[in-house]
Amino acid sequence: MDDVRVCFVGDSFVAGVGDSEFLGWTGRLASGSDGVALTAYNLGVRRQTSSDIRARWLAECAPRLPESCDGRVVFSFGVNDTTAEDGAPRVDPDVSVENLEVILREVAQRGWRVLVVGSPPIDDAEQNERTARLDRRFAEVCGSGGVEYVSVFDALVTDAVWMQQVRDGDGAHPDSGGYRAMATLVRPTWERWLTPR
Amino acid sequence: MDDVRVCFVGDSFVAGVGDSEFLGWTGRLASGSDGVALTAYNLGVRRQTSSDIRARWLAECAPRLPESCDGRVVFSFGVNDTTAEDGAPRVDPDVSVENLEVILREVAQRGWRVLVVGSPPIDDAEQNERTARLDRRFAEVCGSGGVEYVSVFDALVTDAVWMQQVRDGDGAHPDSGGYRAMATLVRPTWERWLTPR
Repeated sequence: MDDVRVCFVGDSFVAGVGDSEFLGWTGRLASGSDGVALTAYNLGVRRQTSSDIRARWLAECAPRLPESCDGRVVFSFGVNDTTAEDGAPRVDPDVSVENLEVILREVAQRGWRVLVVGSPPIDDAEQNERTARLDRRFAEVCGSGGVEYVSVFDALVTDAVWMQQVRDGDGAHPDSGGYRAMATLVRPTWERWLTPR
Repeated sequence: MDDVRVCFVGDSFVAGVGDSEFLGWTGRLASGSDGVALTAYNLGVRRQTSSDIRARWLAECAPRLPESCDGRVVFSFGVNDTTAEDGAPRVDPDVSVENLEVILREVAQRGWRVLVVGSPPIDDAEQNERTARLDRRFAEVCGSGGVEYVSVFDALVTDAVWMQQVRDGDGAHPDSGGYRAMATLVRPTWERWLTPR
């Protein structure tokens, strides 16, 4: 079997914050991937914006994806960009888009296959509007660059389990049921994308 | 509740390689820690020696353990140091000990509470002898520095599940049952150590 290694790079949702089973959506995807010799590295960090991730992603992925393996990277970020601080989003949407574009250029230079997963909704209607707009812009960037993109926002904002667990939690992160719902949305694309080259 | 964040830093055993449930011993410890608001970051990397880990640990832990949280670090490494290459271990035991000493000084300077977990056996009797010797030296370093240390070698080398799953796997890593056994060995110390300050 091929030696496939995937780095999941992103924010607290990638890290699986709030999941009492400590799998998150990334662990659930990985554990259902029979038939592939898969190593999964979780590089989600709380509060990180696309600018934070642009600054660190390569330094963390390089030692984890040696030449000898089939290296892949899954990115998911954006919610921290759209958080309002002092009346403005932490990262301007144009900068978020630029960060994604730069990251996609860098990952292409390394030859690693890439997948981008959109941001989920939280319990804040105004921020959710900004996140939904950023989701559409990220989808355009990926579409025009031939990069796989999975949007989860529209499905999760009407998902009773996700929204209820977010409200029952800290207002942003669900428990296991919510992460299971998110993994289910990503799984079809993930399985196609994971196929060894 | 306190905001406790733990970075697990180490090698492929920390990463949970071979575990079809993608939890490893670290995920199993984290998921059984009710009553603590815990964020767990897994920073295990395949093939890394104590020298590799000494070089990267602080750069990866710093953005994950901001001042506002109760930051902790769990280290576990050594098996890759004792691997023979060209007739000698990849890292000389004196250098492994020095690496651990430097790491413990650095973590003390940052004020993060630290726990060290010893290396497990693999399916190679000669390398296991070297790992067992390094385990005793690591225990001495931690003991003299007042750092919590959990040795797992002696228990796992006679653990039927661990040794059988290692043999059934790639000769080094077990599946879920082995990682469950390792988590059980670490849990008593982990629970005492995790108590918020």
